[in-house]
Amino acid sequence: MNKPALPKRLQGIEKSVIRQVFDRALPGSLNLGLGEPDLPTPEVIRRAAVRSIIDEQNGYTSHAGLSGLREKIAGSYPYLHGNIEKVLVTAGSQEALYLALLSLVDEGDEVLLPNPGFVAYPTIVQMAGATATYYRLPADNNFEFDLDSFRRALTPRTKVVVCISPSNPTGRALSRADLEGIADALRDHDAYLISDEIYRDLYYSDGRPESASSYHDRTIVISGLSKSMSMTGWRLGWMCGDVDVIQSALVLHGYVTTCASTVSQKAALVAWTDEAEASREDFRKTFKSRRDHLLSLIDIELGLRAVTPDGAFYTMIDVARYGSSMTVADALLEERVITVPGAAFGTEAEGFLRVSFCADLEALTEGVGRMKKAFQSFELASGEEVSTVTR
Amino acid sequence: MNKPALPKRLQGIEKSVIRQVFDRALPGSLNLGLGEPDLPTPEVIRRAAVRSIIDEQNGYTSHAGLSGLREKIAGSYPYLHGNIEKVLVTAGSQEALYLALLSLVDEGDEVLLPNPGFVAYPTIVQMAGATATYYRLPADNNFEFDLDSFRRALTPRTKVVVCISPSNPTGRALSRADLEGIADALRDHDAYLISDEIYRDLYYSDGRPESASSYHDRTIVISGLSKSMSMTGWRLGWMCGDVDVIQSALVLHGYVTTCASTVSQKAALVAWTDEAEASREDFRKTFKSRRDHLLSLIDIELGLRAVTPDGAFYTMIDVARYGSSMTVADALLEERVITVPGAAFGTEAEGFLRVSFCADLEALTEGVGRMKKAFQSFELASGEEVSTVTR
Repeated sequence: MNKPALPKRLQGIEKSVIRQVFDRALPGSLNLGLGEPDLPTPEVIRRAAVRSIIDEQNGYTSHAGLSGLREKIAGSYPYLHGNIEKVLVTAGSQEALYLALLSLVDEGDEVLLPNPGFVAYPTIVQMAGATATYYRLPADNNFEFDLDSFRRALTPRTKVVVCISPSNPTGRALSRADLEGIADALRDHDAYLISDEIYRDLYYSDGRPESASSYHDRTIVISGLSKSMSMTGWRLGWMCGDVDVIQSALVLHGYVTTCASTVSQKAALVAWTDEAEASREDFRKTFKSRRDHLLSLIDIELGLRAVTPDGAFYTMIDVARYGSSMTVADALLEERVITVPGAAFGTEAEGFLRVSFCADLEALTEGVGRMKKAFQSFELASGEEVSTVTR
Repeated sequence: MNKPALPKRLQGIEKSVIRQVFDRALPGSLNLGLGEPDLPTPEVIRRAAVRSIIDEQNGYTSHAGLSGLREKIAGSYPYLHGNIEKVLVTAGSQEALYLALLSLVDEGDEVLLPNPGFVAYPTIVQMAGATATYYRLPADNNFEFDLDSFRRALTPRTKVVVCISPSNPTGRALSRADLEGIADALRDHDAYLISDEIYRDLYYSDGRPESASSYHDRTIVISGLSKSMSMTGWRLGWMCGDVDVIQSALVLHGYVTTCASTVSQKAALVAWTDEAEASREDFRKTFKSRRDHLLSLIDIELGLRAVTPDGAFYTMIDVARYGSSMTVADALLEERVITVPGAAFGTEAEGFLRVSFCADLEALTEGVGRMKKAFQSFELASGEEVSTVTR
């Protein structure tokens, strides 16, 4: 019997760098590499789920999801004009992303991605048989959006553009001016914009970041409740936009998962209540105080530069003076603290570590203490004071 | 702006015939077309789910699923020798099927499917860029497995073979001799056998149908709790078999859905208890009495031939004397009873209707009454007694 040859779509696709780092972690490690809120799912959501399990039968919903839920979602984005045919409920925003790319992108197409950006983008593009191209979010400008780089990277062969705001891994959000710039660059282009807005409700600056869909009609929004309602394990996401695109994705969705969990869909119905909004506000306050605590520790204890995130729960620490991001992340593993090497997210984030603040203040203090110890041994090993020029 | 061209993988793929029929149904229709148990999810499952929601945080599980659940699954198939690395938990058996085919089949490969068989098989094969070939389950022998047809259809280019037992749409199970025949035919062949066993716990004959994996090592089992625990909306399934295949499917799974619903996974942990087994036994009793009731009505009221199913909750009624299966199903829609035209499942089932007994005895009686009315108008319309020669 022969070992099966891997189909082309999966060739060269391996466990992500994040998983590889996690797998090397020692027992007792502090995990500052997570992409998952540690806060409990709000009571209002739990109550709704429990009620649905006790009082109702939870069979298949329609493939597209419960109408009531699709109405709530359709009502959240002005460009949908309340049309539920423009909304598809998915098993988390991960499925939404997969469906969006697989229903828009053909073999040989180009997909323009942010560098740095979420690790799944280039992999799914590769699975679709397409080619990933990149626009730079320059590290030396705190990973801010750069319209020139964006315009230069856009070609006539670009089929889809992906943006994420607030960003995983950088926490930076796209400003109104950035979104106007993107819309302007795409005005006479056939490309669709996939806007990953999964972190949109976790923000720490003046007001909720805007949706790209408010600036550009040809936007497919990807979102869900995993991060804002701490519902990662519930697998509840959505995609919305153009009816034709949603229709194609719906066909694929029926064969991929049939529908999202009915219990999770029913629980999600209450995510638009005042009580849920109060929970979101509490989450933001908690994460903001953690962010400020972590940034201050990085500055005072480590003397390193770090990005001040506008949203999400990550910061990027510049560790270039100590070596490659993988070397540094590995050295931190020895001190039992898990971070993610920037290289995992693209060349632009090389020399940085993604550190998440999905941990309480005490754990963040302990984590930075362990990092400090690791950095001190780096300095001892190099036998001299390392350069203070960072990049 | 141009309308986006559909990627090749989705071209020509449309709403299934089943959905098309459902969409044409009149208000007040009795649905005998469903593939979903109408019985309530057992208390033991609901209690476990509620407990997990109230007492625990439900974050991501590992991509492969909870170890405890994978252990239960690994313990259910002797050929896995309890190895949880051979088990992947999925968002329903639908995702398991999608992952299994997409991780085994490359563009240009041949996949050998049952005719008739579940509607998703040829569609996913097409999405994978492969070619579907078929082995006949002859209608004139009550859709029994036919080893000669199977052997003839197997070619050196066959990469994967799919079997389903008990079958959707026929309800027929593969006997020990059938499974031995399949294993023997595949002995010196590189093809993998995907064995769809989602209906395996719903059986009405002498004992649970055996798993193909007990006869052929190179088997990927697809299963889940949707049908046996009436958990369709919970999206809990699995695939198991060869470590290399599971490993490829796991990589894809991470990008498609991340993991199955954590609440559903925790609820599933109790599906191996005595209490759950008692529920399965109750389900079987209920469905068996419905089956016998329906078969008797079809015989006495309609005077038509129908397959006696060994399992699942479908029978196939021979309606060839009245016209094509689509014409007949459409005529039944006029009388407000929904069935599925056999043609949806392959050429071999043309002239049959799939009728499910996911409805109580009263509804089945009423449904057959409406069918009788429709058939009577057929006979009136044809102006003469129709032939009693059925096929």
